[in-house]
Amino acid sequence: MKPVKVAVLGATGMVGQRFISLLEGHPYFRLTDLAASERSAGKRYGDAASWYLSEPMPEGIRESVVKAMDPGGIDADIVFSALPSSVARDVEPLFAREGFVVASNASAYRKEPDVPLLIPEVNPEHLGLIEVQKRNRGWDGCIITNPNCTTIVLALSLKPLYDAFGIKRLHVVSMQALSGAGYSGVPSMAIIDNVIPYIGGEEEKVESEPLKILGKLQEGVVKNADFTVSASCNRVQTSDGHLESVFIDLAEPASPEDVEDLFRRFKGEPQKLGLPTAPDPPIIVRGEPDRPQPRFDRMAGGGMAITVGRIRRDSIFDIKYSVLGHNTIRGAAGASILNAELFVEKGL
Amino acid sequence: MKPVKVAVLGATGMVGQRFISLLEGHPYFRLTDLAASERSAGKRYGDAASWYLSEPMPEGIRESVVKAMDPGGIDADIVFSALPSSVARDVEPLFAREGFVVASNASAYRKEPDVPLLIPEVNPEHLGLIEVQKRNRGWDGCIITNPNCTTIVLALSLKPLYDAFGIKRLHVVSMQALSGAGYSGVPSMAIIDNVIPYIGGEEEKVESEPLKILGKLQEGVVKNADFTVSASCNRVQTSDGHLESVFIDLAEPASPEDVEDLFRRFKGEPQKLGLPTAPDPPIIVRGEPDRPQPRFDRMAGGGMAITVGRIRRDSIFDIKYSVLGHNTIRGAAGASILNAELFVEKGL
Amino acid sequence: MKPVKVAVLGATGMVGQRFISLLEGHPYFRLTDLAASERSAGKRYGDAASWYLSEPMPEGIRESVVKAMDPGGIDADIVFSALPSSVARDVEPLFAREGFVVASNASAYRKEPDVPLLIPEVNPEHLGLIEVQKRNRGWDGCIITNPNCTTIVLALSLKPLYDAFGIKRLHVVSMQALSGAGYSGVPSMAIIDNVIPYIGGEEEKVESEPLKILGKLQEGVVKNADFTVSASCNRVQTSDGHLESVFIDLAEPASPEDVEDLFRRFKGEPQKLGLPTAPDPPIIVRGEPDRPQPRFDRMAGGGMAITVGRIRRDSIFDIKYSVLGHNTIRGAAGASILNAELFVEKGL
Amino acid sequence: MKPVKVAVLGATGMVGQRFISLLEGHPYFRLTDLAASERSAGKRYGDAASWYLSEPMPEGIRESVVKAMDPGGIDADIVFSALPSSVARDVEPLFAREGFVVASNASAYRKEPDVPLLIPEVNPEHLGLIEVQKRNRGWDGCIITNPNCTTIVLALSLKPLYDAFGIKRLHVVSMQALSGAGYSGVPSMAIIDNVIPYIGGEEEKVESEPLKILGKLQEGVVKNADFTVSASCNRVQTSDGHLESVFIDLAEPASPEDVEDLFRRFKGEPQKLGLPTAPDPPIIVRGEPDRPQPRFDRMAGGGMAITVGRIRRDSIFDIKYSVLGHNTIRGAAGASILNAELFVEKGL
Repeated sequence: MKPVKVAVLGATGMVGQRFISLLEGHPYFRLTDLAASERSAGKRYGDAASWYLSEPMPEGIRESVVKAMDPGGIDADIVFSALPSSVARDVEPLFAREGFVVASNASAYRKEPDVPLLIPEVNPEHLGLIEVQKRNRGWDGCIITNPNCTTIVLALSLKPLYDAFGIKRLHVVSMQALSGAGYSGVPSMAIIDNVIPYIGGEEEKVESEPLKILGKLQEGVVKNADFTVSASCNRVQTSDGHLESVFIDLAEPASPEDVEDLFRRFKGEPQKLGLPTAPDPPIIVRGEPDRPQPRFDRMAGGGMAITVGRIRRDSIFDIKYSVLGHNTIRGAAGASILNAELFVEKGL
Repeated sequence: MKPVKVAVLGATGMVGQRFISLLEGHPYFRLTDLAASERSAGKRYGDAASWYLSEPMPEGIRESVVKAMDPGGIDADIVFSALPSSVARDVEPLFAREGFVVASNASAYRKEPDVPLLIPEVNPEHLGLIEVQKRNRGWDGCIITNPNCTTIVLALSLKPLYDAFGIKRLHVVSMQALSGAGYSGVPSMAIIDNVIPYIGGEEEKVESEPLKILGKLQEGVVKNADFTVSASCNRVQTSDGHLESVFIDLAEPASPEDVEDLFRRFKGEPQKLGLPTAPDPPIIVRGEPDRPQPRFDRMAGGGMAITVGRIRRDSIFDIKYSVLGHNTIRGAAGASILNAELFVEKGL
Repeated sequence: MKPVKVAVLGATGMVGQRFISLLEGHPYFRLTDLAASERSAGKRYGDAASWYLSEPMPEGIRESVVKAMDPGGIDADIVFSALPSSVARDVEPLFAREGFVVASNASAYRKEPDVPLLIPEVNPEHLGLIEVQKRNRGWDGCIITNPNCTTIVLALSLKPLYDAFGIKRLHVVSMQALSGAGYSGVPSMAIIDNVIPYIGGEEEKVESEPLKILGKLQEGVVKNADFTVSASCNRVQTSDGHLESVFIDLAEPASPEDVEDLFRRFKGEPQKLGLPTAPDPPIIVRGEPDRPQPRFDRMAGGGMAITVGRIRRDSIFDIKYSVLGHNTIRGAAGASILNAELFVEKGL
Repeated sequence: MKPVKVAVLGATGMVGQRFISLLEGHPYFRLTDLAASERSAGKRYGDAASWYLSEPMPEGIRESVVKAMDPGGIDADIVFSALPSSVARDVEPLFAREGFVVASNASAYRKEPDVPLLIPEVNPEHLGLIEVQKRNRGWDGCIITNPNCTTIVLALSLKPLYDAFGIKRLHVVSMQALSGAGYSGVPSMAIIDNVIPYIGGEEEKVESEPLKILGKLQEGVVKNADFTVSASCNRVQTSDGHLESVFIDLAEPASPEDVEDLFRRFKGEPQKLGLPTAPDPPIIVRGEPDRPQPRFDRMAGGGMAITVGRIRRDSIFDIKYSVLGHNTIRGAAGASILNAELFVEKGL
């Protein structure tokens, strides 16, 4: 396969850097351009950005000149968007109109009825919305979004249960990592020896996104899944890795053993297609009573697998478990890349 | 009032030190003896114990000679027990038999039908069990226990709701502080950049203790409250202060405003009696969207008040809120001391 | 004594809040006005500022209306400045000219030859510069500065050694708390599981300020002390409390016992005068091998005492020890307040 | 080359686990046996040990049966020792006598005149001591030790400077990671929001070991290097990676540029031989003002390279810099493995 040229919008931030890091040596994609806000455009990347990851900056990146976010100046077929939502709202359509595939981590277009909110293991058929989107909007390109980080980790664990038993009610309490707020989002003085029981806008996303993701695409329209979601989100002192306590009422009875068995056997489209960024297995089950834990499990499957544990009965809900995933890999940059891989592999 | 002589059993550990610190200058109690295991007995306290609190060690304590845990050698009317449960099981009855009032933080006797599991603001009438206990066991003294740290914080917040509306179902997810495991309980390598979604034995306590505490004492027997409790407990990187996400189905309808109003107006017996360690108000309501937080709210009311926030409707439960309290003060040593103050003030 | 009216400039930041907290119930001073930048002026303090301290906001502060930093609108005799240095450079002279005593924590005027760089226990006689300053500048008021936080802790420990033995060379390696960079100065993602071996501008301050502080005031001029200082500054993950490893070559021989004895016996002018904020003793010596420690020792003497430990011989230097002090109390707001107390007590 | 059979003594602890992890897929070595104390012997490794590393446990290890530390039962040519020093003192000679090469991380035999204290980049010629050792002790095997973790990181940075300019005085202040004390060595309650300015026994090791390492082997005897070392060791809240502030007086003048140049060009014997665990380059120079940092630099060169930064002049010493290395890889298990690789490659 001839490599597909890709660019990163918002390349200097934390998620932008994850894109750069994950795209190094990618078998499908060749990173041709880095774009960022006007403040950075025209500078060497090494001057425009502080590198925040413990993985080293890939060769050659330091010397790249950051481009402006203007479709005319970007030499690529796919652009990965790590833009803040307010910027994405204006910029992403400019690229889609000009024929780019925009694989976006921003929340700006997630709720649009003709924009796929995609997790390749969960709802690959939602890629069918692209046709609708192009027709509706008269675009040559398109926007494909991935869900919020907390939602991705959660929804990936829900998929086998939803298909096998149905879900009636879903309750989740999250303990989320600092990187989710961006590099400068949480001052150290705010979180040292502390927990913050609030993350602005997060609960709304976690309560709505799973319903679209698990919805059915019928005649060009996603019919949302029909169950109740309650989410309470907390910020804890971990660098990466969102941990979630999940409680579910199922539509049909199932034992913890049934649930564990489903998790262990689950494979999605990316695993069947052997997509380069697809973890196999996508869901890892740990039997120890005290796992998953962020520091030990976030890098499972290269940061793309989720880890579940403590699967057990609950006195109020049918089933409960803890689930963990890497919020800036599985929950952000890696998610967009896997979306783009599916898009390419499907020949779209 | 003539000061009551008190001693601390298990004086060298973390909770033992909290007892010593809180008893300094106490208007009712005079600390006369410190007792600990054989390893420490006979030594100067300053040699037997590493002082773990940031509050300085009270004057004179360093030079005290630690005694063995033998009732014959202890000069006190009340003994505060900071013993591990396995030790408490054997040692506390020895003291109760010899006429001491044992105000215990240990879990060994919490479930005994004739032992009060007491939170003075919640179930002061359960002190009535003491008569039964003395009769049953032929003891001159008695054992009074306080609940588990997570339970105390939770149950204190439940009290006004339970009385006003009744509770049908209670769901709690906790984020608990390191000190709850004792000074050496959690290695730093286990918790740095991490969360542990498991605390051994904790969920069972939190699921059972509230039912006894909120139960009715009738003819010498506590009839447990009748509702379902589900608890999931997590260890986070905070030194002190347990934070709990609480979800409740009420027996009668109530709005968040009703709940907030009840919290604000709540006073218990200790506030009415003006007990020295009683916080007033016992429940503090914070209106900010991101409170309570362990570092900022744990010392409210000298560590004896609990702080609630984020009181709001939930899509699954009737009401939800976050509650926080200091686990080694309100949740342990301060709890036992308040119990003893109530006992003394009641003239028992 | 009639209370002196005081105001705080830069009242919404971290050091501003420390001023407010420390001034509550102050026996000399009555806080009359809070001033801050234009962004905050005109707002209720409770709306303009997030309260960052674990100590609660004093009564009445929430409702105060923040004023602009205009001398004409401030009703006070002394203004405490918690301004950033770039702002202080312009604003502080406006107040001094109008007759205010400016007790400043900012670095803007610390190096001016006619501005006292004051630690009341170390160089109270430098207040004599005020006369020179007023004359030079034609001001009715004056500016009195306190040193950089790291320097104050260090210089207070140096004073008795300098007076008794003289100092030839001073080497210090610091491990500094997060609050020193201001509330938002260090992102949590920068410091979790990390140390940063650099603090911008800090080493220069620590290498120069002690020489002025320990200098002699002669005929209106401070003649700097004459020794070499080398400082290396690191940021570690503590909220408050700067810890410093100090190494000294003395001009005359002295043993660790001599040094310890000097530390223990040291009293400065504030202790002799019984100034309200003066800790007594100002220097606490800990004998344990592993003290001082930030979490346990920073609040010694209400945050105004410094704690030294590990006083011992060194193979390169004559003597070494570790010293710790609270950087936003002893090292900032408390320092300015003690300066103002000395000024008032001296009847200036 | 036929793989060399190796075993790990003390396989269940933190350093033992690093050995297991680093030996996976090793081109020279095949891990045949895991041995540990009697408490673990006979159990499956997965039952005997909690796996502490974030890297997953290699395949097959979980099912291995842990052996007793008896030379007769161990099928290997080289044994890596992760034993506590008190155990190593007795056990290591038993293996050396029976013909095993003991590559030890323990401190028990580091000071013996006939035992190499080896860093392959620094003093590979000290392997010559093995002949002396065998002769002296009548052993078929031998003991080769690596230095203390803090010393290795330091001494590797000293080597090029010592060879080029000579060293007169060396001053080091360390900020050391938690893992250096073993998994349970530092309670979380001891270090949260804290620094501990003391590590038992550490300063003595850092002050003595560099002199042997940089010593000259002449006629079977190591003549220690002749300079003064002063070390002050602090424990900070990082999981892995010791950071050290280093100050040096050189025997001959050199500029920071000279020093940087030497660091950059440095290669040792392992790099020339291309040993599998040898990092290339062994010393990484960072130009940013705020590097090295533990979280970002500890895994440089797979955890085997050290990173230096802030190379600059000092007002007291000739030169200063910060240096960082991974304490359980470069400073422990990786060090022993590199020693064994050198031994094997040299055909000894």
